[in-house]
Amino acid sequence: MTRQNTQIRLAARPVGLPKASDWDYVEEPAPEPTDGQFLVELEYLSVDPAMRAWLNPVRSYVPPVEIGEVMRAGGIARVVESHHPDFAVGDHVNGAFGVQRYAVSDGGGVAKVDTAAAPAPVHLGTLGISGLTAYFGLLDVGRPEPGQTVVVSAAAGSVGNVVGQIARIQGCRAVGIAGGEEKCRWLTEELGFDVAVDYKAGDVRAALREAAPDRIDVFFDNVGGEILEAGLSRLARGARVVLSGALSQYNATEPPPGPRNYMNLLVMRASMTGFVIFDYADRYPEAAQQLGAWLRSGELRSREHVVQGDIAQFPDVLLGLFRGDNTGKLVLAL
Amino acid sequence: MTRQNTQIRLAARPVGLPKASDWDYVEEPAPEPTDGQFLVELEYLSVDPAMRAWLNPVRSYVPPVEIGEVMRAGGIARVVESHHPDFAVGDHVNGAFGVQRYAVSDGGGVAKVDTAAAPAPVHLGTLGISGLTAYFGLLDVGRPEPGQTVVVSAAAGSVGNVVGQIARIQGCRAVGIAGGEEKCRWLTEELGFDVAVDYKAGDVRAALREAAPDRIDVFFDNVGGEILEAGLSRLARGARVVLSGALSQYNATEPPPGPRNYMNLLVMRASMTGFVIFDYADRYPEAAQQLGAWLRSGELRSREHVVQGDIAQFPDVLLGLFRGDNTGKLVLAL
Repeated sequence: MTRQNTQIRLAARPVGLPKASDWDYVEEPAPEPTDGQFLVELEYLSVDPAMRAWLNPVRSYVPPVEIGEVMRAGGIARVVESHHPDFAVGDHVNGAFGVQRYAVSDGGGVAKVDTAAAPAPVHLGTLGISGLTAYFGLLDVGRPEPGQTVVVSAAAGSVGNVVGQIARIQGCRAVGIAGGEEKCRWLTEELGFDVAVDYKAGDVRAALREAAPDRIDVFFDNVGGEILEAGLSRLARGARVVLSGALSQYNATEPPPGPRNYMNLLVMRASMTGFVIFDYADRYPEAAQQLGAWLRSGELRSREHVVQGDIAQFPDVLLGLFRGDNTGKLVLAL
Repeated sequence: MTRQNTQIRLAARPVGLPKASDWDYVEEPAPEPTDGQFLVELEYLSVDPAMRAWLNPVRSYVPPVEIGEVMRAGGIARVVESHHPDFAVGDHVNGAFGVQRYAVSDGGGVAKVDTAAAPAPVHLGTLGISGLTAYFGLLDVGRPEPGQTVVVSAAAGSVGNVVGQIARIQGCRAVGIAGGEEKCRWLTEELGFDVAVDYKAGDVRAALREAAPDRIDVFFDNVGGEILEAGLSRLARGARVVLSGALSQYNATEPPPGPRNYMNLLVMRASMTGFVIFDYADRYPEAAQQLGAWLRSGELRSREHVVQGDIAQFPDVLLGLFRGDNTGKLVLAL
């Protein structure tokens, strides 16, 4: 039986928001797995802000996606054919299979997932890279202490909502910055954030003054730009700024200005530190176990924003991320 | 006997470089020390870039100098009258006596200095706040390891030259960024820096690529602006950026752009940390002892740029700092 693969490949380097013409939709026969390989059929694609950064031809923590390459993406897939001793037909697996319907793998970087314990999209979000990023970024880089104030930007996103919830679990004051009343209500009423600041509703700096009366001990930044400046303007002495992303900057056509008030780091004896989640790979099991336990106890809630569609819809779903359409983890269900 | 005091007071908040009209020159009788106090006559004034920052009406690690106040300054003075058990006439002392000829003190924040061990200006520079800033900023915040590359900006300044020399003593590759051939020659030929980059001679980024072939493990920044960006563009994995000052920004009339490439901190898993030397006050003796030992052994060299003059010349001497007139510690000898 010949399976037909469908793929999204990068056609051109986007300038600003990716346009339809920056992508190629390709149909071709699915690859055949050889000895030591297996074939998977993708069921869920992870759609992440960092994807936009991978399209820029700059040195980063991963090489850029090249023109003509299948777009890089994590996903949950089902094994449909196997010549590999460790993976059986029917297994659900998590891996960077790309934006395509079928992929061949030798098992490198692929983990089996238990979809009985949690639905597949949760394995891409709170139990996946998003949750791990929140866990290590907050606890290892941010090092909050009980009673301290943790502020997270893009708080309704897949990483941010977990950051705030872990902060709350740790006994911190959890403050989220998000866009829109509905997202803010979700953070405070359902996830237990102490305060949510709606950056679309007005002056973020003024709102942060109220939301963080004792200043900010940990600022977990997913956004950059003015939101980062607002955070820097309100640091407590000895504060830690955690750089996890720069959502506001990925589509910029000119290098956006850096944080003008970075010298507040000196005034407040504070630090700003970047991290890349892949460096923590050998500690993923520890974090996944803890996140899983919190999920089971109900202390941690997971929300996925699942869009039903096919491979061809990926470019549009990605744009939704930058419009702020999603609350929680954005997933394309195939 | 009535002594006549001369003072420089702040008359107006400068916009950009301080103008003559931003200062008042005042003559008035010297104050009389009462019980528990002593009177000092200033002999040397420390002239520092941070002084310009103290003139801006913004929250910082010290309150701004207020209009009408005597300009804040550290200095070496001689006790000329004493009603204090610990300070005798003839003692040399180091303290924040301000830009004036005479000052009264109760001994708070004042330390005796041994001008036989090292000339008075050295006690303001390499054995004073400048040297202490270099010592703790590099060793405690930067934490360089032998064989690593340390780059320091404003390397011919009072802090920078000591940073590079301590880096060299620690077995690091010491790279200095300074303005002009003469300063660069001093760094490499007299102080033992491995390389000096003349930022006035061309593309600093390209020069840094050559000067730091293994990238930068510690970037000690006294300058900000494009120099900081050049440093950020060349970080090694796990690098530490130490924020000690922002010489290029103190006179700015608009908030200058922040470092546009701050996200290199993420890519390189690096940190940028600010510190304020006063936090290390209880460890000054340890540092002063080590700096003194290095000076005596000849491993560390000290250079002071001493301008002879009187109190009235302070405003002009301060401007020289921003013209880059000085090599080493700038001191006004009264």
